[in-house]
Amino acid sequence: MLRTHTCGELSKENAGNEVTLAGWVETHRIQGRISFILLRDRYGITQIFVNPKLTKELGEIRRESVVQVKGEVKERPENQVKKDMVTGEIEVSANEIKVITDAAPLPLELGEEVESNEETRLKYRYLDLRRPNMVNNLVARHKAIQSIRNLLTEKNFLDVTTPILTKSTPEGARDYLVPSRLHKGKFYALPQAPQQYKQLLMVAGIDRYFQIAPCFRDEAARAHRAPGEFYQLDFEMSFPNQEDILNIIEETVIKMINDVFPEKKFTQIPFPRLKYDDVMKKYNVDCPDIRKNKNNPNELGFCWVVDFPLFMKQTKEDFFHGVGEEWGPSHNMFTSPKEEDISLLDTDPGKVKSYQHDLVLNGFEVGGGAIRIHDPKIQDKVFDLIGLKEKQKKEFAHMLEAFTYGAPPHGGIALGIDRLLMVIMNKKSIRELIAFPKNKDAIDPVMNAPSEVSEEQLKELHIKLVK
Amino acid sequence: MLRTHTCGELSKENAGNEVTLAGWVETHRIQGRISFILLRDRYGITQIFVNPKLTKELGEIRRESVVQVKGEVKERPENQVKKDMVTGEIEVSANEIKVITDAAPLPLELGEEVESNEETRLKYRYLDLRRPNMVNNLVARHKAIQSIRNLLTEKNFLDVTTPILTKSTPEGARDYLVPSRLHKGKFYALPQAPQQYKQLLMVAGIDRYFQIAPCFRDEAARAHRAPGEFYQLDFEMSFPNQEDILNIIEETVIKMINDVFPEKKFTQIPFPRLKYDDVMKKYNVDCPDIRKNKNNPNELGFCWVVDFPLFMKQTKEDFFHGVGEEWGPSHNMFTSPKEEDISLLDTDPGKVKSYQHDLVLNGFEVGGGAIRIHDPKIQDKVFDLIGLKEKQKKEFAHMLEAFTYGAPPHGGIALGIDRLLMVIMNKKSIRELIAFPKNKDAIDPVMNAPSEVSEEQLKELHIKLVK
Repeated sequence: MLRTHTCGELSKENAGNEVTLAGWVETHRIQGRISFILLRDRYGITQIFVNPKLTKELGEIRRESVVQVKGEVKERPENQVKKDMVTGEIEVSANEIKVITDAAPLPLELGEEVESNEETRLKYRYLDLRRPNMVNNLVARHKAIQSIRNLLTEKNFLDVTTPILTKSTPEGARDYLVPSRLHKGKFYALPQAPQQYKQLLMVAGIDRYFQIAPCFRDEAARAHRAPGEFYQLDFEMSFPNQEDILNIIEETVIKMINDVFPEKKFTQIPFPRLKYDDVMKKYNVDCPDIRKNKNNPNELGFCWVVDFPLFMKQTKEDFFHGVGEEWGPSHNMFTSPKEEDISLLDTDPGKVKSYQHDLVLNGFEVGGGAIRIHDPKIQDKVFDLIGLKEKQKKEFAHMLEAFTYGAPPHGGIALGIDRLLMVIMNKKSIRELIAFPKNKDAIDPVMNAPSEVSEEQLKELHIKLVK
Repeated sequence: MLRTHTCGELSKENAGNEVTLAGWVETHRIQGRISFILLRDRYGITQIFVNPKLTKELGEIRRESVVQVKGEVKERPENQVKKDMVTGEIEVSANEIKVITDAAPLPLELGEEVESNEETRLKYRYLDLRRPNMVNNLVARHKAIQSIRNLLTEKNFLDVTTPILTKSTPEGARDYLVPSRLHKGKFYALPQAPQQYKQLLMVAGIDRYFQIAPCFRDEAARAHRAPGEFYQLDFEMSFPNQEDILNIIEETVIKMINDVFPEKKFTQIPFPRLKYDDVMKKYNVDCPDIRKNKNNPNELGFCWVVDFPLFMKQTKEDFFHGVGEEWGPSHNMFTSPKEEDISLLDTDPGKVKSYQHDLVLNGFEVGGGAIRIHDPKIQDKVFDLIGLKEKQKKEFAHMLEAFTYGAPPHGGIALGIDRLLMVIMNKKSIRELIAFPKNKDAIDPVMNAPSEVSEEQLKELHIKLVK
């Protein structure tokens, strides 16, 4: 390594040691013939004392230049210890300083207090991410996902990767399509969620599945929704009662928060189970904010909403792909009706209650799922009720067929990882949790994607542009 | 839960307990008035004794039906213990059996010994995955990735997610393109690797990064290459010497193998570092098989190959996107030349050695990486040498700009996760490690993707089919 220590680890225990540090010049302050560098990396900041000879040789080093410093650790006198710095007990007296890369003036200010324009921040994300609070967001995201993975692994859940190049099916949102080079006139679709694959994994007997799964929806960006792509904790299990799913997810979320955000307090544990009808009556929305004190940034008011109707009245967006005009699925078309309401499917579908469950935090829906249908006859009936035409039903023939070869009762949930963390961490935008987010117009400002491609590429894909 | 125990956990300790099991009927063997069910789930098989009354009521239950059994655990007499079954000490005497879903006759045989046609196996993957050896493959994959994640997390590597909808750039293979609905005539590309993002993360000061990253290449399938999409352990660090990268990866791989495949033996530790020129002389390929005994399925012959030339003679495939005709990058266009050879870039580029490193196992290349260029002037010179035109260089302007704001020396590697596991586990095809692989024609036989899409969808994307 081009360093012996990071900029966040030296203390008076190291006094007298010869060390090598490498990092970014936060400031270089010249005081007469001597100077001081605050040297920064992801782990902290260390003060470097630069003697007259080196100060003269180097001149002023520009901010954000990368330098390597060799020197000796010196303990500060008791009254000069900097309590607000992790390395405040020491400074490093430089014997040798090498400027590895000199930095041009930056297009944005990196101070925590500076509120840069979001467009500039996103274009120069590789600079924006140098802010300690942005690093903290990425570290929290990593730790949260790691905590979830470890607990679910302990509980025998299997992390299974499902395909990203898959098939367009008439579901909620618009699909992203990928033209096939090998199969003229055909397209893959990026998955809106691995819904069908996870249900097929249950038919396969995988029994307990999870994945931090990339999902894709071609829809508008909002503060709590990442445009284009997002990640969800995708979760499915066989032979559960609905309460089993709720309990495991609740335990997983509580453990993650205790691990990564120990300062947070829960409004109520176990999370209350609220009935949809009661919630709508009391709050007039299906994602209630149950916090006792909405001004306490550390209060987390989780609740479960259950007993949803199986169908909602269809809206214009729902039938983008040309499904029916009367009923749309409240959750998705694979959600199981309650056994006692199955007969109502024929007589009064609007009255059928389902095994849907939504996880709500501080008024945001952070997860949703259900016990699924595993009986092909009921699945077929639900397809009819939401108005799938025969041709569209054929697109799901593999699911109906799979259910005829021994399908276990199963159910699950999906949690929006970044949305959940956004609410827990009181961030204004989901983009604060994402290393390289797209902007509100679904553009990646770092790479400038989407972009034009060559005629040759389009020709190979058997498509052309509409003028 | 609809069960109290799995089919793989009861022992004589449970004798006398009332239990509920749920699973798949491996066999239902009727012997006169009584019968026996072998009930299977992911965890094992338990024998169920079915008394005359229940046998008569049920008739013969079809194989692979899902049933729920309530009954009492009975210890088997010492001389009837089935040593080859995890639950061989007991059987469950059923009081109640409920057929949850009756299975139609299967389109493929599930016995381990049966070699089904691969097309049938892939089409009915949800049945194929019921074979215990397929479950074992998925479990091994999960454990291997979990082991890697845990070790790298301990070492302060940060798991950062990078975009999947990104930009087409002239690199090695063909890109998959995604037409933009919001930006007429423009396309996202799926990443061939997160190469640029990971280097930008180093510029951002993230210091140590990894990701089990989805990668996409529109190229032909081979036994050791998954068509379409695959996952790599993507890894990058700042301020390393080349040996630091080799050492951390070597430790990670050895730990993973000791954790998950304890029966495996290494030909040599530390993995030998072999020079490209010597390897080519001795083996005539750049991925040598250094095993002492190639017939020992548990021997793993890892080696590193280093000191590659920076450039290779360009081949036809390399200049698909229209780059130059003389030199192509041996690894990729971001690989750093050795310092002592930089002057040769101007005089004799073919002689320049680089900081590329390949990890080779039993004759397969399982990983490749390099110390990267962090000096924009050298990067620009390499772009020129491989023949990028001004317009193409513009596509990388953000990289060159990023390097002017304080870029640390950095380097990394990418390991093909499934290829590595394929070689470790002596599988014939990488598809054995993937839950839902595409076939050799890049078709997903379960979903039947790619497929035709509606005119309306194409219109929204501003494209039409070429007749």
